[in-house]
Amino acid sequence: MAAMQNAFQTVALIGKYMNPEMRAHILALADFLLQRGVLVLVEDKTAVQSDITAYPTVAMDQIGLTADLAVVLGGDGTMLTVARALAQHKIPLVGVNRGRFGFLTDVSSDTMLDAMARILAGEFSTEQRMLLVAAIMRQGQLVSEGQALNDVVINKDGLARLIELEVNIDGQFVHRQRSDGLILATPTGTTAYSLSAGGPILHPTLDAIALVPICPHTLSNRPIAIHGNSKVVVTVIQSQDARVHFDGQHQVSLQPGDQVLVQRAPCSVCLLHPQGHSHYGMLRDKLGWG
Amino acid sequence: MAAMQNAFQTVALIGKYMNPEMRAHILALADFLLQRGVLVLVEDKTAVQSDITAYPTVAMDQIGLTADLAVVLGGDGTMLTVARALAQHKIPLVGVNRGRFGFLTDVSSDTMLDAMARILAGEFSTEQRMLLVAAIMRQGQLVSEGQALNDVVINKDGLARLIELEVNIDGQFVHRQRSDGLILATPTGTTAYSLSAGGPILHPTLDAIALVPICPHTLSNRPIAIHGNSKVVVTVIQSQDARVHFDGQHQVSLQPGDQVLVQRAPCSVCLLHPQGHSHYGMLRDKLGWG
Amino acid sequence: MAAMQNAFQTVALIGKYMNPEMRAHILALADFLLQRGVLVLVEDKTAVQSDITAYPTVAMDQIGLTADLAVVLGGDGTMLTVARALAQHKIPLVGVNRGRFGFLTDVSSDTMLDAMARILAGEFSTEQRMLLVAAIMRQGQLVSEGQALNDVVINKDGLARLIELEVNIDGQFVHRQRSDGLILATPTGTTAYSLSAGGPILHPTLDAIALVPICPHTLSNRPIAIHGNSKVVVTVIQSQDARVHFDGQHQVSLQPGDQVLVQRAPCSVCLLHPQGHSHYGMLRDKLGWG
Amino acid sequence: MAAMQNAFQTVALIGKYMNPEMRAHILALADFLLQRGVLVLVEDKTAVQSDITAYPTVAMDQIGLTADLAVVLGGDGTMLTVARALAQHKIPLVGVNRGRFGFLTDVSSDTMLDAMARILAGEFSTEQRMLLVAAIMRQGQLVSEGQALNDVVINKDGLARLIELEVNIDGQFVHRQRSDGLILATPTGTTAYSLSAGGPILHPTLDAIALVPICPHTLSNRPIAIHGNSKVVVTVIQSQDARVHFDGQHQVSLQPGDQVLVQRAPCSVCLLHPQGHSHYGMLRDKLGWG
Repeated sequence: MAAMQNAFQTVALIGKYMNPEMRAHILALADFLLQRGVLVLVEDKTAVQSDITAYPTVAMDQIGLTADLAVVLGGDGTMLTVARALAQHKIPLVGVNRGRFGFLTDVSSDTMLDAMARILAGEFSTEQRMLLVAAIMRQGQLVSEGQALNDVVINKDGLARLIELEVNIDGQFVHRQRSDGLILATPTGTTAYSLSAGGPILHPTLDAIALVPICPHTLSNRPIAIHGNSKVVVTVIQSQDARVHFDGQHQVSLQPGDQVLVQRAPCSVCLLHPQGHSHYGMLRDKLGWG
Repeated sequence: MAAMQNAFQTVALIGKYMNPEMRAHILALADFLLQRGVLVLVEDKTAVQSDITAYPTVAMDQIGLTADLAVVLGGDGTMLTVARALAQHKIPLVGVNRGRFGFLTDVSSDTMLDAMARILAGEFSTEQRMLLVAAIMRQGQLVSEGQALNDVVINKDGLARLIELEVNIDGQFVHRQRSDGLILATPTGTTAYSLSAGGPILHPTLDAIALVPICPHTLSNRPIAIHGNSKVVVTVIQSQDARVHFDGQHQVSLQPGDQVLVQRAPCSVCLLHPQGHSHYGMLRDKLGWG
Repeated sequence: MAAMQNAFQTVALIGKYMNPEMRAHILALADFLLQRGVLVLVEDKTAVQSDITAYPTVAMDQIGLTADLAVVLGGDGTMLTVARALAQHKIPLVGVNRGRFGFLTDVSSDTMLDAMARILAGEFSTEQRMLLVAAIMRQGQLVSEGQALNDVVINKDGLARLIELEVNIDGQFVHRQRSDGLILATPTGTTAYSLSAGGPILHPTLDAIALVPICPHTLSNRPIAIHGNSKVVVTVIQSQDARVHFDGQHQVSLQPGDQVLVQRAPCSVCLLHPQGHSHYGMLRDKLGWG
Repeated sequence: MAAMQNAFQTVALIGKYMNPEMRAHILALADFLLQRGVLVLVEDKTAVQSDITAYPTVAMDQIGLTADLAVVLGGDGTMLTVARALAQHKIPLVGVNRGRFGFLTDVSSDTMLDAMARILAGEFSTEQRMLLVAAIMRQGQLVSEGQALNDVVINKDGLARLIELEVNIDGQFVHRQRSDGLILATPTGTTAYSLSAGGPILHPTLDAIALVPICPHTLSNRPIAIHGNSKVVVTVIQSQDARVHFDGQHQVSLQPGDQVLVQRAPCSVCLLHPQGHSHYGMLRDKLGWG
């Protein structure tokens, strides 16, 4: 079979961090792709951790330049990490999960070869998912930055009783809130932590950011969703110890007076789904809807 | 002062239905406008009910053709009624409430003359608010239609124990839900009934429709917000007695098997605010935020 | 085997109303009991509807006088009906559900013979469940009464936009609320409709009544739980059409000014569980907890 | 006026920690009591911090032995601290707040002299409020203990993504939950942090403990209220860093495998209210009900 016929010519495989159990799945997928005439690259850390030596390796920051599809073998957490790392490139991502699928990983390892055959045959859809970028300002100086595919969370530390935050949107004062914290979620993130905190589910096609307070002191402080073009400034008014978290994977300490500027990132993440994927079907399955 | 200087030349005044207490406010406003060189029209039912004879009257369905601004003196309920009636025209609406303002009526009768002076001087902003349109289909035939600025609500009657609905969006099956009903709200409607049912607040600039279940049997049936271009079909699977409500003001009985097709209406409502209006300030005030 | 050894000598069998599919289960259970030397009675309507002629029949209102155990074959709805009917007697009830068990019916028809053998051997526990009684007063006169094992619900009719209620507890004014209605639930009822409305789960050993507003206009109108000895008076202040429901099975129309007096009923319901029953295990299973 | 006529002979005054602004209120109250023939004691730290030298002082741990009423001048936080410190004695507490009253401090400093006159005249009511006691067990050893009038909270630290807890009640397994944490609240505590986390309001006369998950991963993990006699064991299954908090004022670090045993404390707190106090009135005022 000629590689020309494939929708993708070079596919990078990325495994869950420090998770050698993925080895067999990676090898099976690599072998399948190779036989279809696809050039297979294995992310270098994945190769070392899974002891895979039969394929050329590629550093994460080179994947976007060398491959035209990235397959992530792992859970939603791995997808978040890879998505942020590859977002500046336009390479599509597909997620393969072991057994049960996740919110971001809609291919099961049980059926991944079938799914990949369909993808190579061009039977897939893609969608762009918004990323958030946050800048932490201290006395007018940028002290840190971060990106999130799910959410930027500003919350109190375990030691603190509560946090007091002031929220401004597009230059307008919204309110001061005393709470355990505030979640700023992309539509993608509204099925993650935001949902546990009582936030709404926003469809990925919605150009919106959800602001969801965590255990707010004022009972009428309800979740709001604002336009995706909005610029949000959250100021730490008072807290013994506050932090900002990016996708629950990275964090930065905050001090009273710090401002966190949150807005849509200039780049987005391209998710690829085998044909037949339904966002509502995924919600139904993951949330146990009737 | 020449009428040329005014931002609006012909203003229609509409009072709350069957509410003669508005008479003094209407007359004060009419007199003020007249002195500014504005042509004042009074909606004909308002004129009769409030016993106002000194001004030319106009039927509701002629207002859009004859006036270039409509001032509604009443509460949010009156605004809903007038907004639906005038939506097919592009005439801007401003709402004057007695004392305390509402979600849709941001001018207080206490300060209405000041506000109107600023409006005539061009110191105002306008915004478009989405309307929903719903078609009720029975065995493939259209049996009724309605519009809503706040919400289309499909719910059980007081006699019924619960209702079972199937929801499809853009041709995709979403789920079947057993509940007291389902609210389909515009961003405008998310601060009304939808909020009581646990729905999120959607900013008016968001091109979105909120689907909020009322007392759902399945606890994971959480509110979702979908794109404003979506076409929603709600099918009544089972109910002793079901109804569809438009802004809580009109209703139509439903039968098992009936389908309610809900989507954005082709026209929208133009709200006019005196300069300085802040949507977040309104939320802060109405919801008692910190 | 001598009947003396059985924990119960006379067992009444009651089937789901108008549900002949229960016939085989009833006959299997009756035969099993007969062979163990138990006197089997079949509730007379059940006998007619299921065409069972081989056993003596008994009217519902005689069961408490003639049998020392009642087995209900049906779902939670059937249990509610039978429990209210038999509550004035002290006869224990055990619920048998087809396949999957319910909140009140913790024996599956698949294993009912094993369960019954254990029950006859004395391997069971019993518990008392509170009933509520409600009196509807109109201009000082009692116009109707009702009992509930799950809940007394005062709500608006499908035609109404909302209802305004005043709540007084033990002679103290609590508040006026505008909402879709108010649920007064026993601990038993807190896993039913009350849960859908956002109410807490109260353990059955708790001597308490939950008051859960349905879609309250004021966001801080949160569910409260009060002492089981409390006397609650709910006055209908305003409504186009209001009703009071008992376990979602019976209802009475209300008029503005009507008062609904709700308190613990003098009698309670005795539920019998095969040994090993765990209330938390039931919650875990029915609610899908981790 | 003879001291015999007073309902209380020796009154201890306790001021908010490090809050000299209370000085004038303490002196005014002390002077008033002295003139009524009451022996006034000032808690020793209060005396030093507020520079009060004209009255005999008493150590906190001696107040229960020497005084028959303790007046706490401060907010709900001060009341929590003093209540735990004095709980082993049976001395009644009355709370005086500056201006606006709190959930636990129902006398305003504006009217405290009137209130105190009524209290001395015997025009008051008292009520017992449950305390919780928690023992932290590590590998079978007691490593720490604490008491709470509001709540025992087991939660993740700011660094952690979530915490996994196993809950057992009265020897029965309830469930494992992944969440931000778990609140165990007394009825008193149900109007504090528990309410922000979505918990129900439990009336103080209810013999109950509320278990309220904080942002639970499983959406059906709803608040439950159990009998006040229950013994709850919460085991930390997994967490990068977990803590247990007592009334949000003290905390102890937890390790995976630690067990927190929570139950009703042997002693309770006696709150004293001037006649006319209404718990529902307090809720109405503090929560802004209708």
